[in-house]
Amino acid sequence: MTKKIRIKNLPIGGGAPISVQSMTNVSVCDVDSTLRQINDLQNSDCDIVRIALPDNKAAEAFSIVRKNTDMPLVADIHFDGRLAVAAIEAGADKIRINPGNMSFKQLDSVIDCAKSNGIPIRLGVNGGSVNRDLLKKHNGDKVLAIEANLRQYITYFEDKGFDKIVLSVKSSDVSEMVRVNRSIAASFDYPIHLGVTEAGPAYQGLVKNSVGIGTLLLDGIGDTIRVSLTANPVEEVRAAKEILKSLNLRDGVKFVSCPKCGRCGYDLEKAATEIYEYVKDMRKNIKVAVMGCEVNGPGECLDADVGIAGANGRCVFFKYGKIYKTVDESVAVEEFKREIDLIAK
Amino acid sequence: MTKKIRIKNLPIGGGAPISVQSMTNVSVCDVDSTLRQINDLQNSDCDIVRIALPDNKAAEAFSIVRKNTDMPLVADIHFDGRLAVAAIEAGADKIRINPGNMSFKQLDSVIDCAKSNGIPIRLGVNGGSVNRDLLKKHNGDKVLAIEANLRQYITYFEDKGFDKIVLSVKSSDVSEMVRVNRSIAASFDYPIHLGVTEAGPAYQGLVKNSVGIGTLLLDGIGDTIRVSLTANPVEEVRAAKEILKSLNLRDGVKFVSCPKCGRCGYDLEKAATEIYEYVKDMRKNIKVAVMGCEVNGPGECLDADVGIAGANGRCVFFKYGKIYKTVDESVAVEEFKREIDLIAK
Repeated sequence: MTKKIRIKNLPIGGGAPISVQSMTNVSVCDVDSTLRQINDLQNSDCDIVRIALPDNKAAEAFSIVRKNTDMPLVADIHFDGRLAVAAIEAGADKIRINPGNMSFKQLDSVIDCAKSNGIPIRLGVNGGSVNRDLLKKHNGDKVLAIEANLRQYITYFEDKGFDKIVLSVKSSDVSEMVRVNRSIAASFDYPIHLGVTEAGPAYQGLVKNSVGIGTLLLDGIGDTIRVSLTANPVEEVRAAKEILKSLNLRDGVKFVSCPKCGRCGYDLEKAATEIYEYVKDMRKNIKVAVMGCEVNGPGECLDADVGIAGANGRCVFFKYGKIYKTVDESVAVEEFKREIDLIAK
Repeated sequence: MTKKIRIKNLPIGGGAPISVQSMTNVSVCDVDSTLRQINDLQNSDCDIVRIALPDNKAAEAFSIVRKNTDMPLVADIHFDGRLAVAAIEAGADKIRINPGNMSFKQLDSVIDCAKSNGIPIRLGVNGGSVNRDLLKKHNGDKVLAIEANLRQYITYFEDKGFDKIVLSVKSSDVSEMVRVNRSIAASFDYPIHLGVTEAGPAYQGLVKNSVGIGTLLLDGIGDTIRVSLTANPVEEVRAAKEILKSLNLRDGVKFVSCPKCGRCGYDLEKAATEIYEYVKDMRKNIKVAVMGCEVNGPGECLDADVGIAGANGRCVFFKYGKIYKTVDESVAVEEFKREIDLIAK
């Protein structure tokens, strides 16, 4: 098990529930838009918000943002350690740096400042930012080079008595991202932040993140996740929640529906979509099945708390494999929602 | 490595490229609609089409469909072995049965018929259809029960001298589906058909299939895949191709784009979406990067054949980490497409 650290009051690692992160994608200097995005993320059940601070102006704006939200905030800083210090002093709950692009002197002051403020630091090494000498030393093997690079940073931090560390090793190549995370999970016991970088627009990004993050979560690797999409940040949270739900790592309705096949007796896609939308944000651990026909329907969903299947202009409702009600197709979906409500109570 | 079998001329297993399947979702008795769906699937690069044959009428319609398409066709039959025999005689390239719901006498005639016609049979056991006695014997452990069930069927088929077998063990639970496929891959050397059953509507289904199928493909497990979605079958093919591409298991443009962050200098989401749509069906092994800013852009995409990044009202184009051109933002996307065409040649 990984060590447990805290971001504000939120535990990360050590068996804590896997938390979901996202990142604002407007300039933090536009304080109103930033706060609006943070608010939207909070409403969509996001746990942690990251904000990029590219310069002094951004660091000043960050301090205003900080005063106007209670969300756990992570400041993302490159190159200039003084910005990290400013962000911590302004109330960042965690900072994210790549130590490789900062001077040692500045890095030391960042570590000291994080230590005295009791906040964690995420050490990030990406496929694109790994130390070139280490890459050469390991004959171009990115997995070995990234792990060696991270080990240098960890040693440096530990030698300075700092251990509130979160690790992240990202890549835009899913297979590489899985290999390198498996490798660091076997070597270190700090909590791990999972993500696929530059995953692309919504559709491709959803697939790449699901494969990469999902594979690792199935291994028991990963303490906090960020689905990176070239899209509205709220979409990142939606995707992250869906990945967690697919592996039973998050409360929610288990929704199953079969692909319509030649046996199907009603407009399954419409019914499934409507019922899915109805249940998708319910935090109830029940299983709802929307099936095409009586052949596979009740039998394949013996463990469904409630199910519906088509039967020639009528629909049957079933519980634990047993049909208990038959209703007209025209009113079936509405009536089925009421059955769900009854069971969810 | 798994054994190699053939569905029509298409090799499955034994190191052959992973093939993509889908299933028509209209009644096969509606021959025109069925042929239209098969045609759409063929145009979307689907390799194999499955059709459900619930009764005699469907089997008759299937023989007409068969005469009007050269796509590899799989007939999906439950309960009635005579339908399977009829489908094989009508020219099915493979049949899919669950031997558990057929009488032994009928099963024998199906095996004989498949043997004399030289076509393979997919043996499917799903979480919902596993033998109840075996489930009891294994104390409710579905993974063990499914594997034991499959072993019975395989033994039965092998004893009759039949070995053109494809295996499939599906579940609507992703974690269970991964465990049971890992288990059968370790036990048998027949090619494996991967899928998550009843995965739900497009969004949830995409995530569940990506996690389940992707995890197994990363293990080197899986010879043919079917993404099951409660949606248009063409969406199933799109999803399957995207999963394969995410793991470099299919030719195509590698597209990376970063999530827009506070550093971004132009409308990245719009540019990324437009460029992604432009390249997504190109079968060229090039890497295209659409990045927000000059900070992460060129550096994080050292291996991109061509990339674009925003820079205050202008965009820079880069190759292998080096900027080689600066253009006005208003014409950047169009000009960038021309650069892609040049490189793809």
